[in-house]
Amino acid sequence: MKAYVMDAQGNHSLQERPKPNLINEDDIIVKIESTSICGTDLQILRGTVPTFKSDTVLGHEGVGIVEECGSHIKKFKPGDRVVISCTTSCGSCSMCQKSQFGQCINGGWMLGNEIDGCHAEYVRVPYGDNSLFHAPENIANESLVLLSDIFPTGYEVGVLDGKLKPADTLAIIGCGPVGLAALMTAQFFSPSKIYAIDNNPHRLNAAKKLGATHTINNSENTAVDQILDITDGVGVDVVIEAIGIPAGWDMSQQLVCPGGNIAVLGVHGKSATINLEDMWKRNFTMTAGLVHTYSVPTLIKQIQAGHLHPEKLCTHHFPMGEFDKAYDTFINAEENDALKVLVSR
Amino acid sequence: MKAYVMDAQGNHSLQERPKPNLINEDDIIVKIESTSICGTDLQILRGTVPTFKSDTVLGHEGVGIVEECGSHIKKFKPGDRVVISCTTSCGSCSMCQKSQFGQCINGGWMLGNEIDGCHAEYVRVPYGDNSLFHAPENIANESLVLLSDIFPTGYEVGVLDGKLKPADTLAIIGCGPVGLAALMTAQFFSPSKIYAIDNNPHRLNAAKKLGATHTINNSENTAVDQILDITDGVGVDVVIEAIGIPAGWDMSQQLVCPGGNIAVLGVHGKSATINLEDMWKRNFTMTAGLVHTYSVPTLIKQIQAGHLHPEKLCTHHFPMGEFDKAYDTFINAEENDALKVLVSR
Repeated sequence: MKAYVMDAQGNHSLQERPKPNLINEDDIIVKIESTSICGTDLQILRGTVPTFKSDTVLGHEGVGIVEECGSHIKKFKPGDRVVISCTTSCGSCSMCQKSQFGQCINGGWMLGNEIDGCHAEYVRVPYGDNSLFHAPENIANESLVLLSDIFPTGYEVGVLDGKLKPADTLAIIGCGPVGLAALMTAQFFSPSKIYAIDNNPHRLNAAKKLGATHTINNSENTAVDQILDITDGVGVDVVIEAIGIPAGWDMSQQLVCPGGNIAVLGVHGKSATINLEDMWKRNFTMTAGLVHTYSVPTLIKQIQAGHLHPEKLCTHHFPMGEFDKAYDTFINAEENDALKVLVSR
Repeated sequence: MKAYVMDAQGNHSLQERPKPNLINEDDIIVKIESTSICGTDLQILRGTVPTFKSDTVLGHEGVGIVEECGSHIKKFKPGDRVVISCTTSCGSCSMCQKSQFGQCINGGWMLGNEIDGCHAEYVRVPYGDNSLFHAPENIANESLVLLSDIFPTGYEVGVLDGKLKPADTLAIIGCGPVGLAALMTAQFFSPSKIYAIDNNPHRLNAAKKLGATHTINNSENTAVDQILDITDGVGVDVVIEAIGIPAGWDMSQQLVCPGGNIAVLGVHGKSATINLEDMWKRNFTMTAGLVHTYSVPTLIKQIQAGHLHPEKLCTHHFPMGEFDKAYDTFINAEENDALKVLVSR
């Protein structure tokens, strides 16, 4: 089968690989219909993901058809259409029992990291009963594939952990795909104002089309001043940090109002400064963490209800033979005006 | 009347001052029966509280008898026994309407900071209807006076904001009065383990008597290693940071388990490092803020039910003429084995 692989030297390429086989009784083999590239895949290419095992097939986002089930599988059968969770969870460890599936002791982020992932024609999904979701026939692949990671991440780690409430004011720092997924799912709660912050006019334009009430260009580092000016110095109820750099955290501290929440969903590689000398008295909450994907069934219902259109983020489509082009497009996302890049059978 | 005052030169002394008068229609004059000294009062003496207005009477903790009410007061009358909230709140601004009384736009921490406080024979309490609590006759002053600040702070900002649940494991960093108040009120939720951390054997001994299951001496900076060793590397569900220095925050990050909570109730004067490169993926929550004192009625019920004994923290008692001795005792708390120092009529 075709598979996109990165080796120990950091070379990534489309290769021929054997089709995966069942290894454990709770494995499921999925025939990939559509897969997408995530910012984290690019971090692997840059060599900044220490858990990545070289010569592994990349990718942790995908929708497909169940090909084969291990003997312990109860919830799925061959032919079922499924969304693959980016997080593999056993369902029975102490963390899974607390619904902290992203922290599963036996699973976690395995696909395209520790074991072969979704950027291939087939993938083996461990703990299949807990790591796949049934996909309704009436939703297109280009919507479903974005439920593997970025929509549950934006919704769970951004909107829900940020405890957004109706009429709240919201700032989203960073309008990449995950920031935009937070922006779209935030609207389930009808915030009164959504300030979308980015340096890139194309992304700000996308944010505007997707529901931002204010787009704030931060190319001259004036976003905080602009928003504090609009809000009479008060700041916003909820800040969703979706860029994963110290400057994003700094802005979050400055933007959150007394009694407000900061939800960090950026993948951070460096430490930052927490200004406890000011923040200790602000009655704020901050959260940060991995997605659990518990919200996928909710998101499916919202697509069916017409409240959510994940496919709006899909800007580029490639066939499986053109993984290289797909990666090149996403690596140069800004010049290509790319948001999500899909590779489909 | 006798009043304890700090001047612009940083000299603090017992002085004769005129008894306060009503200024606004919603003021209440309270005759102080008992008052206590807080760590924040000592920070004023050290000159580290920029909001403090010199020549102001110190103190924001007190219990007493209503002497006189402004014409708009509805809930109190002369002769009522009252607990004074350390936080003055108007009850009608946008923050009060969100129950963020500590963030009241018109009030906040006024007593003993911006206006004359409780270390005197009488005090004027603005917004009296919202800033006093009725005190039952059957509870002693030495319990009630600790409801002005440290017990609601430990309970609201530590235990409740930390979302402690039955059977959780809890670490309390710092066994000063507020840390011990958190330790005592945490037991309302029956945590399975309470790790009390301090460098001072006397305070650890107090923590043990007050319900800590483990006392951890950190004089050689081994507390984190000791607790991670006991917990098989997992850490604890809830960390309450009650020392207000960067090392307390560092320990909190290391001790919190995946999915756990850090509640900061220390008063911090410096920034610290947030290790987002590790913490972004830990599904943790942190909270920090001022006490609102909304829990005082609950704490009164818990005293009446026999579930709470604030008076156990009262180690030293002085009459009003000996404020200097009382301050000296609390300034040298460690050598005096002092927890809370009371000054009473």
